[in-house]
This record gives sequence, structure tokens and C-alpha cells, in this order.
Amino acid sequence: YKGTLWEKSKSFITLTCIAILIGCFAGFIQIFTETLGNWKTGHCSRNWLLNKSFCCTDVVLEEVSKRNPLLLKRQEMECIEQGIWIERTGIFFPFMIFITLSLCFALASTLLVKYVAPMATGSGISEIKVWVSGFIYESEFLNGITLLVKSVSLPLAISSGLSIGKEGPSVHYATCCGFIVTRWLLKNSLTYSDQFEYLTAASGAGVAVAFGAPIGGVLFGLEEISSATDFYPSTLWKSYYVALIAVTTLKCIDPFRNGKIILFNVTYDKNWKVMELPIFIVLGIFGGLYGKYISRWNIRYVHFRKQYLKNWPVQEVIVLALVTAFISYFNEFLKLDMTESMGVLFHECSKNDNSSVFAHRLCQLDENTHFWEFAKALSSLLFATLIRSLFVIISYGAKVPAGIFVPSMAIGATFGRAVSLIVERFITGANVITPGAYAFLGAAAALTGITNLTLTVVVIMLELTGAFIYIIPTMIVVAISRIILTSSGTSGGIADQMILVNGFPLLEYESEDKEDDFMISYTTGEIMSTDLYTLSETMYLSDLEVLLNDPNKEKLVNGFPIISNDYRLKSEMRCVGYVLKRHLIAKVLQHNIDSAESSNTIINFTISEEMLENGNEISFKDIVNLQPTTVKPNVSTAMLFKTFKHMGCKAIMVEEDGLLKGLITSKDIQRFERAKSREKFGPTYIYNE
Amino acid sequence: YKGTLWEKSKSFITLTCIAILIGCFAGFIQIFTETLGNWKTGHCSRNWLLNKSFCCTDVVLEEVSKRNPLLLKRQEMECIEQGIWIERTGIFFPFMIFITLSLCFALASTLLVKYVAPMATGSGISEIKVWVSGFIYESEFLNGITLLVKSVSLPLAISSGLSIGKEGPSVHYATCCGFIVTRWLLKNSLTYSDQFEYLTAASGAGVAVAFGAPIGGVLFGLEEISSATDFYPSTLWKSYYVALIAVTTLKCIDPFRNGKIILFNVTYDKNWKVMELPIFIVLGIFGGLYGKYISRWNIRYVHFRKQYLKNWPVQEVIVLALVTAFISYFNEFLKLDMTESMGVLFHECSKNDNSSVFAHRLCQLDENTHFWEFAKALSSLLFATLIRSLFVIISYGAKVPAGIFVPSMAIGATFGRAVSLIVERFITGANVITPGAYAFLGAAAALTGITNLTLTVVVIMLELTGAFIYIIPTMIVVAISRIILTSSGTSGGIADQMILVNGFPLLEYESEDKEDDFMISYTTGEIMSTDLYTLSETMYLSDLEVLLNDPNKEKLVNGFPIISNDYRLKSEMRCVGYVLKRHLIAKVLQHNIDSAESSNTIINFTISEEMLENGNEISFKDIVNLQPTTVKPNVSTAMLFKTFKHMGCKAIMVEEDGLLKGLITSKDIQRFERAKSREKFGPTYIYNE
Repeated sequence: YKGTLWEKSKSFITLTCIAILIGCFAGFIQIFTETLGNWKTGHCSRNWLLNKSFCCTDVVLEEVSKRNPLLLKRQEMECIEQGIWIERTGIFFPFMIFITLSLCFALASTLLVKYVAPMATGSGISEIKVWVSGFIYESEFLNGITLLVKSVSLPLAISSGLSIGKEGPSVHYATCCGFIVTRWLLKNSLTYSDQFEYLTAASGAGVAVAFGAPIGGVLFGLEEISSATDFYPSTLWKSYYVALIAVTTLKCIDPFRNGKIILFNVTYDKNWKVMELPIFIVLGIFGGLYGKYISRWNIRYVHFRKQYLKNWPVQEVIVLALVTAFISYFNEFLKLDMTESMGVLFHECSKNDNSSVFAHRLCQLDENTHFWEFAKALSSLLFATLIRSLFVIISYGAKVPAGIFVPSMAIGATFGRAVSLIVERFITGANVITPGAYAFLGAAAALTGITNLTLTVVVIMLELTGAFIYIIPTMIVVAISRIILTSSGTSGGIADQMILVNGFPLLEYESEDKEDDFMISYTTGEIMSTDLYTLSETMYLSDLEVLLNDPNKEKLVNGFPIISNDYRLKSEMRCVGYVLKRHLIAKVLQHNIDSAESSNTIINFTISEEMLENGNEISFKDIVNLQPTTVKPNVSTAMLFKTFKHMGCKAIMVEEDGLLKGLITSKDIQRFERAKSREKFGPTYIYNE
Repeated sequence: YKGTLWEKSKSFITLTCIAILIGCFAGFIQIFTETLGNWKTGHCSRNWLLNKSFCCTDVVLEEVSKRNPLLLKRQEMECIEQGIWIERTGIFFPFMIFITLSLCFALASTLLVKYVAPMATGSGISEIKVWVSGFIYESEFLNGITLLVKSVSLPLAISSGLSIGKEGPSVHYATCCGFIVTRWLLKNSLTYSDQFEYLTAASGAGVAVAFGAPIGGVLFGLEEISSATDFYPSTLWKSYYVALIAVTTLKCIDPFRNGKIILFNVTYDKNWKVMELPIFIVLGIFGGLYGKYISRWNIRYVHFRKQYLKNWPVQEVIVLALVTAFISYFNEFLKLDMTESMGVLFHECSKNDNSSVFAHRLCQLDENTHFWEFAKALSSLLFATLIRSLFVIISYGAKVPAGIFVPSMAIGATFGRAVSLIVERFITGANVITPGAYAFLGAAAALTGITNLTLTVVVIMLELTGAFIYIIPTMIVVAISRIILTSSGTSGGIADQMILVNGFPLLEYESEDKEDDFMISYTTGEIMSTDLYTLSETMYLSDLEVLLNDPNKEKLVNGFPIISNDYRLKSEMRCVGYVLKRHLIAKVLQHNIDSAESSNTIINFTISEEMLENGNEISFKDIVNLQPTTVKPNVSTAMLFKTFKHMGCKAIMVEEDGLLKGLITSKDIQRFERAKSREKFGPTYIYNE
């Protein structure tokens, strides 16, 4: 009875465990990041270990609505005034501490990555896509050490001030949680396609906790991760459940001690006007071009790094941190934490704002402002846009955990706010448009440009701000960015491009331009491997053990076709099944027959245990796929790709007139495609070779 | 050049046309519905044809934020006071007009459906799911007449006061728009899987315009419609684009003359508390049970109707309308339009509400209210919940266009508000909880219960109200409803159950309980049809014409396998391709060869035009699928279903050792399954037989 109960509820329990684990890691990372960041500028008088939020929790203004960002800000100021949180004063000394701590954090982060878990570098989204599309990437990629290193070195990297975000890496550590929990709880019953569902759900929850956007997270899992595979309704429900529980856990931990869910709560109350549409289109175009050029130049820089900086990854990070800290210290938008800076930029300028904490000088600009003031603000915004873009190009891909979502949003926000200044000054005059909304739309555009996601970006932006009144402009801007990006020939978001750049295996089955695809002219017969290792329907266990332990074949194959006893000639083999090597190994271990007996034991692959007559026969039927997918040799590659993708199989038998002619795995296709592509176009990326 | 431009932009143009058409129909339907509804209670003094919104557009209070529901309501009151809109006064006379008009509208609606377009009845969601899952339902279902009748009879049915919603039928008319436009613009190049993408996108836009919720619409297409088929990233983008343009079109039409996007704008400012969780769980359980029992009883009533009311559909609708109008007139929540009633229920009770238009007496209840007052309000809400549920059970399925989304939401809202009254009175006291939020959560729960959708419901509810602060409670309530629903053994939402009830073909490939599935024990060889009509690789056009015009074969087959010339014996046919009958007919018509010549013309199915040597040969190679999907006869049904579903094919060749043994279509499976199922379990539903 206990068994049945577990059978019925195991998926439920597994999902809950994954979600709570993700929530806890997210809470730890957020608190740790804030603590490190706050140490750079001050310390708590009560206990120097505490960060600003925890230090100031006792400061209560009055019975306030906790959601109001203005009041939160005022509470923080009150806390500083009362001397509970002490900001460093002076010019030289604080600057030195700022720089030194930035360097230490960056150094610690990159050393951890380099020497403990090299897989923890970068964002990890590309690798996860590769994994769920069916290629098992190196198993260290999702193990416990990578999880721990990623969750420690990510806060270090972010608080070092580099232009990197925590969202990509969040996807990675969340997927690690999913992988570890499923392996631990479901190890006996887990099929690959089940595992992909759990991993997709976990990856979505990673985005959900990073942005505090549960629905956005679910959609991310759907639109980005599972675009590499199929998305079933059951995955949607799993993603929904994991995202919900993970975000709820995070909310219970309450890492910012203010109970807030919406990161940048805005209350835009002016409706948008149709005449603003051309400006929305400009923002959309900016987003598309941003995505196109940033990813292109980032990839060029990745090449450059692989060629010239290969042996100095740690030094590279140190120099990057130093340069970033020096330059950022002197621009108000770069100096602020990216999230805080977006908070300022998104904020609506309201005349009757009775508190001046958010009343940035950007809001004081109107027709009467001196042109010099206006130009200063504008150039400051454009400078921030430009410099942050440069930083993103050279930072993304360095040997630290690094995401590109939030930096892109910050760049879009400064650009959008700059556009709003120009529009207010030269076109509409003050108080007609909502300038904060332009920053918001710019952020959405840049995020779409870099990720090539549509619905996900819209939902994440709305969940971040609650700016529901701007739903149509957001959708328009995102659509334009996407159209610009795809029509300029950029293939997918930066994650997809990184897959190509790194030479990861990912079958691009459904290319839009069918004509460009040179693979279309080949048939299955040309790609298949004909040099097969096969098994007979019945064979001695000792023979099988020899085959399995043969070091030459060790690496070569993942599975064996099983050949009918009646047709064993090389020229007319008939395949009756397919068996995976790892299943064979497990089964042999399970039977644990000593070597003396093994040469007398016969394995039968096609008859089940109960039907066997001889005492010395054992049945392996349960591990055999008796109906492997088959195609004919004259089938085109297009059809072959479709079969691989849609039937979700790892190996396809090639048969003609019922006779086995060869075998095709995804790796065969990969190998063939690379070889032909090199023949035809030369190497794609120099360092791949 | 013009051709290439069209090739490149045709999908873009098609999507835009579909979206604009949907937007226009939605605008017409909304204006028409409001006009009919308003006529029941009053008329415009300026022009009796106008509805209240159009009549009152000139009344301007001051420069107001148009989004504020309080001000909109006040504008309406002002309009009545100024005598521009005249409400009928008195007791008997208005009541008679109310009843009479309700009856007339119901009669007109049902007569239109019965005599002009019988396919326009019901919601149509089940049929669309069947259609996109690959079974072409009767073609009248999506034609122009159905579209027109549905868009006229839907407003009539709704304004007759029946407990029905416009969301399901919106999906239907939107899909009609999609079907008509794609057939018109893309008729030459449209493949079935392309068409499914367009239809899915259009169906999503139907929900988007009905609720004013573009993202919810896209998700509806994903979660409900395409759960029957596969969802590709390109469908997501198409859905996104169509939903965006359709909603933008609707906004430009501005049917309510107030520019509002959010239907029930709420501004809940009290955050929810963890101690409220048990009550959220109660609401979730209500939703699950509501969904379970309403759909069960509705199905029983459908059986009853088929047995006893079959010949009186019009009379049934008349009686329904009469009963509904009589009972509803005397309950304040039932009398109001469902949307308006939800507006009142969702509204937060705020102490400093300086306008009393929304200050319903529900808001005046606190600890000091006399128990009698409290009991009256509570029983009024519970009465509305109960009676509306009964109405839903007996109305959904009557011979008018009818959806079940909004009635379910209204039922959930009255129940949730009743729960909030009890909680405020007996547990928390006044001003602790947000009572409107309970109505909102109740609506979400009931909607999940009836549809079995999760993410879509959450997003639609948030888009309807903008209540982002309640995102986690909404997700929790929806998750609980879903868990209750699935764990109580209900298979899917009401749309899925209706598919079963109506005996529509829908391959349920992936049943969760593999053991229960009796089909698993059969193989492909048992299901396939062996009595094949085949074509030869080369044949005379006249022979083909005879075959195509043969009235006996007319209905029987959709396509023909093409047999190699070298192996034409019945016992060893080799299949070289598969051709669809409708493609053959089109191709023959296109060549337009007169009958004298046709007996001299040879058709070649495997050699392309350029390679033909004889002058009297013409090539049909372009319409032949040269690589039809094949399986072996010993393949299990599970694998066969998987192949059908994943490869998206309509017919599968059964081959053994390269020889054609038979052919399987979805219809073969259907027929076989029904026969076996009847043998084994007896008929599922009595009237199906």
C-alpha cells in the first residue's frame, strides 16, 4: 500500500521538493548578493554582517502600505539618518574600498569557477537547451558541485559590479536542483522524456524566482527551453506548479524584508495615445538592432577571447572588473545597481509627488530648463547606454556566472528614457507622455532583441512592473523587435547563437529557409553508419560481457540492434529490436552471475521469462525496444530530421525490404553535417576545429 | 518580383487580415449586444437606435481619467439625469417589455441557428479541437454563413438574458474568420499543418477580443486548442501577432466609447496574508467540485435533451428564456448583466469612496450590522450562485450560440463574495480582508473547474482586473481547483468531455492509465484496411478520371497509394508514394484536357516534368508524397498512435519486407476502436448508436 501511495504521489512530491529547493537557493542568493553589494558602500552598526534590508527592518515609519516604493525608500533614508546603517563618507577612502571589494569579489568568483566547477561559467541556457533536446551533455554540468559553486560565485560576480545579470545563471542552478532531486527521488523509474519535463519545469522556476515572475517563468520554460523539444500539456502543468511553489517559498523567506512581489511597482495613470505609435516603433527597431549587433559583436569577442585570452581567464575577469568599476563610478546610471537604476528610470514623474526620493533630476526637466541641463541629462543617459553595451559585449562569456537579461533591460531603459527626454523637449512638451513608460518599453525591446522571445518578455515586463495599461504598447514594441531581428537574418536569440558558436549538438530540424539548407539534398542512406555492432536474438552471457568490456567499442556505440536468429548473414540481417548499452550493463550487473557460469548462460532478447524452457536461459526482453523506429535508405534528410524530432528517438534503424542496412543516431547526422558543411563553406568558426 | 514579395509576405498579410477581421466582428458583436441589452430597459432620446454608451458619449464630466470605473459610472448617471438616456419607469409595463424583448431575442437567435446555420449552435470549442487534431469536421462548420449567423445570433442570445457567455462562441467566429481568410489568400499553397497554425492563432484571438486579454488569448490557443495537436514556436508567434492586431483593432473601434482595456479595473491595496490560505484552499475546492458536478449534470441533461426534447429545440429555448427572465428579475445579482454583476462583486469596499455608485450595500456590512441584514445579503448571494448554476446546467447545449466561461465566473464570484461575508463576520472582522478579491478568486476557481485550464485562467483573470498583487493567491486557487478536478477522475474540461459525449473523433493518444487502455493489445495488422484502391506509377488520364468519378469510391477514400510499375501483382505491391484525392482532382482540372485526348495522355507520378521524354506524358510528381510514413504490421497500437500524432500524417502505409500490405487512416483506428469498445463495454452513450 505504501508503494502505491508513493507511485501515485511521487511526481507531486518530486515537484514540491524541486520547487522548495529552488526557492531556498534563490533566497540565499538574493540575500548574499545584497549583503556583498551593500558592504561596498557601508556597514550596519548593529552587526556588520547584516545587509541594509535586514539592518533596517526595525525602522518603522508608521503603518504603511509596504508595497509603496516611495515609502520603502524613505524607510531606508530614515535608517541612515538614525545611524543604524552607516554609509562611508569621504572621497578617496570609500572609492578605494569600492574598487578593492569589487576586485576581491570578481577574483573569488572566477577562481571558484576555474578550479572547482568549470561548468558553472556563463549563463548555462544554451547547454540546458542542448540537454533537453536529447543530447546528454557532460554530467558535471548539472551536479551538486556545480550547483553550489554557481550559487556562491554568482552573488560574488554580480556584486563585483560587472555588467552581468543573475537570470541566466538562475536558470542553471534551478535546473541543477531539478536534476539532483529527480535523480535522488525517481532514479528507478525515470525515463528521459520524463526527466526533460522536470528539467523544463525547473528551468522555468529559475526565471520565476529571479524576476519574481511566476507566469513569466512558466512561459520561459515553454518558449525558450522547450523550443528545442516538444512541449506537452503535462509539462505546462509541472512548470506551473514548480514556479508557484518556488516563488511562494521565496516569498516566505522574504529576502528583502519588505514582502514585495513586484520588483518595480509603477502606477502609470496616463493612457498611451495613438500618436505615440511611431515612437514605440522606434523603440522596437532599437531593440531588434541591439539584439542583432550585440550578439554578433559578442560572438566576435568570444572568438577573440578563444584565440588570444585563452590562457588568462582569471586575469581577464580582474581587468574587466577594474575597468567596469572605474568607469561606472562616474556615471550616475552605471554606478547604481542595475535593478535600482531601472527602478529610477521606470518611475513615473508625478507633479504631486510628496516625497523627493524618487524625484530624480530627470523629472525636473521641462521646456523651461536650460538647454545645457537637458543636454547633460541626455548625454548621461546615452553614455550609459553605450558604455553598458560595450561592457555587455566584453563581459558575457567571461569565466564567471553571467546572464545577459538584466544588463540588456538596463541598456534598453536608459535608451528609452533618453528618447522620452527628446520627445518631451522637441515634440510634445511636458506632462503629455509618461517618460517612465518609455524606459519600460525600451527595456522590453532590448530584452526581446537579445532573447528572441515574445510572450515571455511581455509577461515578465508586466509582472515586474504591474503596468497593465501599457500591455498593447509592450506587445507592439516586442513584436517590432522580433520582426526586425528575424528579418535581418539573425537566427534566434543569443542562447541559440551560442549553441552554434560552441559547436554544441542541436538538431536544427525546422529551418525556415528550406532552400538555404544544403543538407536537404542528401538521403538517409548517405548518412547512416553501416559498420554496425549487432547482437543475436539469443547469445551466451560471456560473449555479451566480452562485447561490453571491449575498450575499443566502449566509446563508440550507445546501443545495439538485435538480429533475428533466422537471418544472421551480414547481407540479409533482419532487425527484431534495439537495446541500449547502459540498460544491458545494468541488467548484467543485476543478475550478477559469476564468470564460470556465464559461459553456460544464454540470454534471450525476444522471449519473456515465463515462456523460457531451458533452465540456463535468462530473458532480457524487458530492456529491448521491440519496435524501433525504422526508415528506408531513400528517405530525405528533411523527413529524417522530422522523424528524429517527433518520434523522440535516439537511434533509427535503416531498413530496405525488411533487411537492416544501417543505423542512424543524432551524432551521425551531426558528424555528417559538419563534414559536409566544412567541405562546402569552410569552417564556420575558426576555433571549433 | 511581385511573386517573391508575395511569397515572403503572404503569411504576414494573411495574419493581419485575419486579425483585423476578427477585431471588426468583435466590435460589431459588442456594440450590437449592448444595444439589444439596453433596449430592454430604456432608450436614447436623441436616436432610439443608439445604445447607452453611444448615446452618452457627449456627456463630459470634466477632464477625467477615462479608466476610472467610478467616473464612468458617474458619467452614466449624469446622462440619465440629463434625460439623454431614458430608463423606463413603472412596475408592470417595463417588466412586460423586459420579458417580451427577452423572448423575441431568444426566438430570433434560435430560429437563425435552426434554419440557416445549424453549425452555429453551442460554443464550438470542442469541434475546433477536433478539427485541429486532424479530423476535418463538416466543412459548413467554418464557412461564411456560420460566421454571419453566429455573429448575429450570439448577441441576440446573450441579450435574451440566458445564462450563457460570449467567449466560447467568440472562439468559433474567430476561427471561421481564420479559415475563410486562409482559404481565400493561401488556397494554392496551404498545407494542413499550416492551416492548423492559422486556426489556432485565430481561436486564441477570439478569446483575446472577448475578454480584452491578448496574452490570455494566446495562452488559450496554446493550452486548450493545441493540446489536441502539437504546438510549435511558429504557432506561438502567429498567435501573438493575431491577438495583438485583433485587440488593437477592437480598441480602435472602441465599442464602449471609453477607451478602456481592463474590463474590471480593481485597485486592491491590501496585501493578502498567509493566514488567508485556508480560505483560498476552500475557494479552490469549490472550483474543482463546481467543474466536476456542473459538467457531469450538464452531460446528463444533454442526454435527457437528446431523448425527450429532440424535436422541440425552439420551444425549449423559449421556455428557458422565459424562466430565466422571470426568476432573474427578482434577484439583484441575477438581474444585472453578468459582466456588470462581476464588476460590482470584484470592486473593493473602500471607506473613503467619495462616490456611492459602486458602494453596494454589501460594502456597508460590518460587525454592527443587524444579523438579519447580513443573512439577507448572504442568502441573496448563495441563491444567485445556486440558481445560476442550475441555469448553466440546462442552458449550455441549447440550440443557441452559448459559452460557459462567463457564467462560471459569475457563479464563482457570487460564491466567493458570500465566503468573504462569512469570513468578515465570524473570523476577521471588518477591514482586514479585501472582500472583492474573494469574489475574484472564486471566479478564477470556477473558471478553472469548468475548463481545466491553469495558466490561461490566471493570465485572463489578471488581464481582466489588473490585480497583480493577488498573483500568488490566484495561482494557488487555480492549482487547487485543478488538483481537485483531476484527482476526482474528471477527464479534462467541459470541452474535452463534450467531445466524448458527442462521439467526435479525437485520438486520445496519450492516455495516462496505460493499463486501462484495451487498444494496447492490438497491432497495426489488425486495424489496417487491406482493401485498397491503388494507382500505378504511370497510367492513362482517362483511367484516372474514371476512378475519380466513380460514385462508389467517392466517399470512401481520401488518397491512393502509388504502386511501382515493376511490382504490380496484388501479392507483392511496392508503394512508391501516396497522393491525396483532392490534389488529384485539382491537378486534373488544372490541365483541363478534353476527353478525346485524355485516353492518350499518360500520367507519370514519379518523374518530374523536365525529365519526361514522351510528348503525351504529363507529370503529377509535384502532388505526390514520395516518402509516406510506413510502419510494419506487427507494430503495436501505442506506437501507431504515437506515429500518427507526432508525424502529423493522415495516412500510414503498412509494409512488410518492403511490400505494401495495407493502409491506415485515423478513421480506420476510430472505426476499429468503436467496434472493439462496443464489443467489450457496450455502447458508451445511448444516443450515439
